[in-house]
Amino acid sequence: MSRWPVQLVLDDAQDGAPRFIQISRAIQADIRRGRLVAGTPLPGSRTLASSLGVHRNTVLAAYRELSAEGWIATREARGTFVSDAIPEVKSRRSAGSARVDAMSERAGFDLPARGAERLAELMARGRAREGLMDLGGGIPDVRLVPAMELSRAVRRVLSRAGGASALAYGDPAGPAPLRDALAAMVTATRGLGATRAHVMVTRGSQMALDLFARLALGPGDVVAVEALGYVPAWEALRLTGARLVPIPVDGRGVDVTRLAEIAAREPRLRGVYVTPHHQYPTTVTMSASRRLALLDVARARRLFVLEDDYDHEFHYEGRPVLPLASADPHGVVVYVGTLSKVLAPALRVGFVVAPPPVIERLAALRRVVDRQGDHVLELALADLLDEGLLQRHIRRTRRVYAERRDALHALLEQELGGVLTCERPQGGTAVWGRVRRDVDVDAWAARARERGLVLQPGRMFAFDGKARPHLRLGFAQHDPREAREAVRRMVASLPAVSATSRGGSPRASRARRSTA
Amino acid sequence: MSRWPVQLVLDDAQDGAPRFIQISRAIQADIRRGRLVAGTPLPGSRTLASSLGVHRNTVLAAYRELSAEGWIATREARGTFVSDAIPEVKSRRSAGSARVDAMSERAGFDLPARGAERLAELMARGRAREGLMDLGGGIPDVRLVPAMELSRAVRRVLSRAGGASALAYGDPAGPAPLRDALAAMVTATRGLGATRAHVMVTRGSQMALDLFARLALGPGDVVAVEALGYVPAWEALRLTGARLVPIPVDGRGVDVTRLAEIAAREPRLRGVYVTPHHQYPTTVTMSASRRLALLDVARARRLFVLEDDYDHEFHYEGRPVLPLASADPHGVVVYVGTLSKVLAPALRVGFVVAPPPVIERLAALRRVVDRQGDHVLELALADLLDEGLLQRHIRRTRRVYAERRDALHALLEQELGGVLTCERPQGGTAVWGRVRRDVDVDAWAARARERGLVLQPGRMFAFDGKARPHLRLGFAQHDPREAREAVRRMVASLPAVSATSRGGSPRASRARRSTA
Repeated sequence: MSRWPVQLVLDDAQDGAPRFIQISRAIQADIRRGRLVAGTPLPGSRTLASSLGVHRNTVLAAYRELSAEGWIATREARGTFVSDAIPEVKSRRSAGSARVDAMSERAGFDLPARGAERLAELMARGRAREGLMDLGGGIPDVRLVPAMELSRAVRRVLSRAGGASALAYGDPAGPAPLRDALAAMVTATRGLGATRAHVMVTRGSQMALDLFARLALGPGDVVAVEALGYVPAWEALRLTGARLVPIPVDGRGVDVTRLAEIAAREPRLRGVYVTPHHQYPTTVTMSASRRLALLDVARARRLFVLEDDYDHEFHYEGRPVLPLASADPHGVVVYVGTLSKVLAPALRVGFVVAPPPVIERLAALRRVVDRQGDHVLELALADLLDEGLLQRHIRRTRRVYAERRDALHALLEQELGGVLTCERPQGGTAVWGRVRRDVDVDAWAARARERGLVLQPGRMFAFDGKARPHLRLGFAQHDPREAREAVRRMVASLPAVSATSRGGSPRASRARRSTA
Repeated sequence: MSRWPVQLVLDDAQDGAPRFIQISRAIQADIRRGRLVAGTPLPGSRTLASSLGVHRNTVLAAYRELSAEGWIATREARGTFVSDAIPEVKSRRSAGSARVDAMSERAGFDLPARGAERLAELMARGRAREGLMDLGGGIPDVRLVPAMELSRAVRRVLSRAGGASALAYGDPAGPAPLRDALAAMVTATRGLGATRAHVMVTRGSQMALDLFARLALGPGDVVAVEALGYVPAWEALRLTGARLVPIPVDGRGVDVTRLAEIAAREPRLRGVYVTPHHQYPTTVTMSASRRLALLDVARARRLFVLEDDYDHEFHYEGRPVLPLASADPHGVVVYVGTLSKVLAPALRVGFVVAPPPVIERLAALRRVVDRQGDHVLELALADLLDEGLLQRHIRRTRRVYAERRDALHALLEQELGGVLTCERPQGGTAVWGRVRRDVDVDAWAARARERGLVLQPGRMFAFDGKARPHLRLGFAQHDPREAREAVRRMVASLPAVSATSRGGSPRASRARRSTA
């Protein structure tokens, strides 16, 4: 257990009882309150006597009293402990008396609702996945992370001059070495021509979205979003009090003509949130003509384009697609990227690339949000980038994920071809599947859950929260054996389809019958 | 430099020029744009040929062309590099053409002001301290941090089962082992009787303040704050759109009678932000009667009491003072603590202790703010707590800081007794000094800055931003030799006082004259 010092507070106002009785009562009270639990070591009599300013004999008398009443016990050569068999301990909840200092279970003040239900549902989604096999998208395989190299880099940062500079207060925009390494990275790989002044380090892309939303939006403002789309981004935008307007997505990305119409009639429209590289959740890459049109609308209307390039590194086919930000001489694009997908979700390191005045405002805002990032981790990652180790990790991961994409895609065709159709995506970490109309996709997900498999049905990405005949299936997190097991459970959970429906893979139908 | 792959994009629409010319032009363009800088290695001809789908001879022809024009150079046995003496590279700023993809220096959209000036000033304060000797308060000595034990604990976390669970998506409220360790800590040392459900891990106390403010406050709400007080907390509260009402502070803490008056006339008053243990910046400990009165007002009006106990561990005299939260059966107190002060500012680990429904709402909000904390670091700290190592570090630091407090206090009395009076504080990391009325304290700070010493004048804590005859002087960060040097610079920077003023330490006056 913990080794916190026992801190005894004696009540001056006590009724003139002898000091040893006061001490005995104070310790009893702490045991009743739960501050001292069974097995907690009590301080030695000399230590306690000195901290209370009493004679040691007084403490010994108090301990004898407590021991006689069964509150404490002395174990030979090991010291004095709170007894494991305490005579009478009131439960915290039922204690009632104002002197009992158990924490309240309820708040004594009111909190406004402000989207609480939607946020609670997002939390519930995350918690529901714990301990299950998860076939959701966007989950890297953390087993690939170069954990030992990372831990060595952390040690190097901490041992350099005692780690003093890495441990002191630092720049809310991030440590200079990582900003420089990221500027070099986006210049080399994304054509952004950025310098340190264009780059801010954030805690993953989510913090970048939340910080920029707080900077740019307020109550009454309007922001356009892709729909289907990414719910955690929507919620960050909504927290500002802004209203969201959904823009449809098709096989060439977000519908820019529709955006232009909305821009023409909504004077409070401030900007648009997009995922052009691999649209979330449909995996579509935005077409070149749409890209140009989007930048034109934004420039003409002075809208921001919040470009979330959350998995830039994972593109497996053809030429690399440069982000919108690489073709933006007017400073309308605020570019968001992350290393959390190429490394591990728990290593929260993302970045914003934007015109320097925007970076300065974001950094000033962050000063009061969480003061600064994890400079030890961030400097360790700068080291790994400078050494080329992260680049090697990305290349290796890209190779592994490309294979897993092919494998999952082939498995799905083979085992579920009749009910689920999906194109092999050009990049990303997930397949976007269309489910045959007569299959209830939500029922499928619910039945899969009973078999310990998490599926993401289309409803999870819908602006109206209604069902959609889609599944988003992640291929990055599972090795081939695991992927086969996941698909086996999918097949086994397939709900019965109406007898009148056409077609269907005989294999899937057979599988369904044989396990129902 | 970085080892990012060169990603060449050939323009399909080019005017039918031979492939090798197209390649040569594309590389030239990248050099002009700054995507390829002097010294960057170019890919081998085989690699580039394969990625472009052309014959290797085509690439070799392009490289010969570029080499002839001086764009690239081949170093024997080392490969081909962008030339150090590039014929003509336009500066990014002056390039002008829409095809140049240097990032814009200006934003193409507008950002609302929303306190930008105040936030920028806060940032400027932080930056102004860099590289100087800083006698400000609240700065721990990071040289005392057990950096090697911490780095070993990080390695242990990362190597346990490949670090997989620590690296995957986790609970926004923090990893269970650290929540348990913190619950045990606040139960043993602060009398809070908390369980895991009462505790959320945050990134330092600043994130706790910002998250709770976003949860509890909105435009039109009112919140009371101590004045003098802590500006970064004020700014976090203001970001919600709430209005702040200052409450005066005296030698017994915040004026609760005044708070009650405001509560009676302000229907939108939602709560109060306080620092009862060592009031920031005056170091005063709130009196017992004020504490009871504050809790009574809060309970009666359903106000929250946001209790910031930022340096609980550092109390050097008499009995430990338990926080307000330890005497709150009604759930009005939201308690904020931090490990960043006992460890290092850059290790952002703080915590909120509050009724479970408040913790759940905070965690759900955090889900979209930065997803989750640094679980690797947080699990490493849980290990250090379970081993008792952090407890040992706290005891050691407390001893060192108590000595430094005594030393700085004695030095100030001896060297500046005539112009600066301060009581020896019972705890914390700073002395609160009153400066003689006829000394211009802001001029003193400005003159000290010229000597490389940062001082915090009273104005920095004033709600109205006006001058106050005070200095807050940190004693934690400097060893005795450094403290003597800091005080020497203080004496040397003392501005001239008017000849008519009474008294003044002859020593300080002498020092002032001898260095002026």
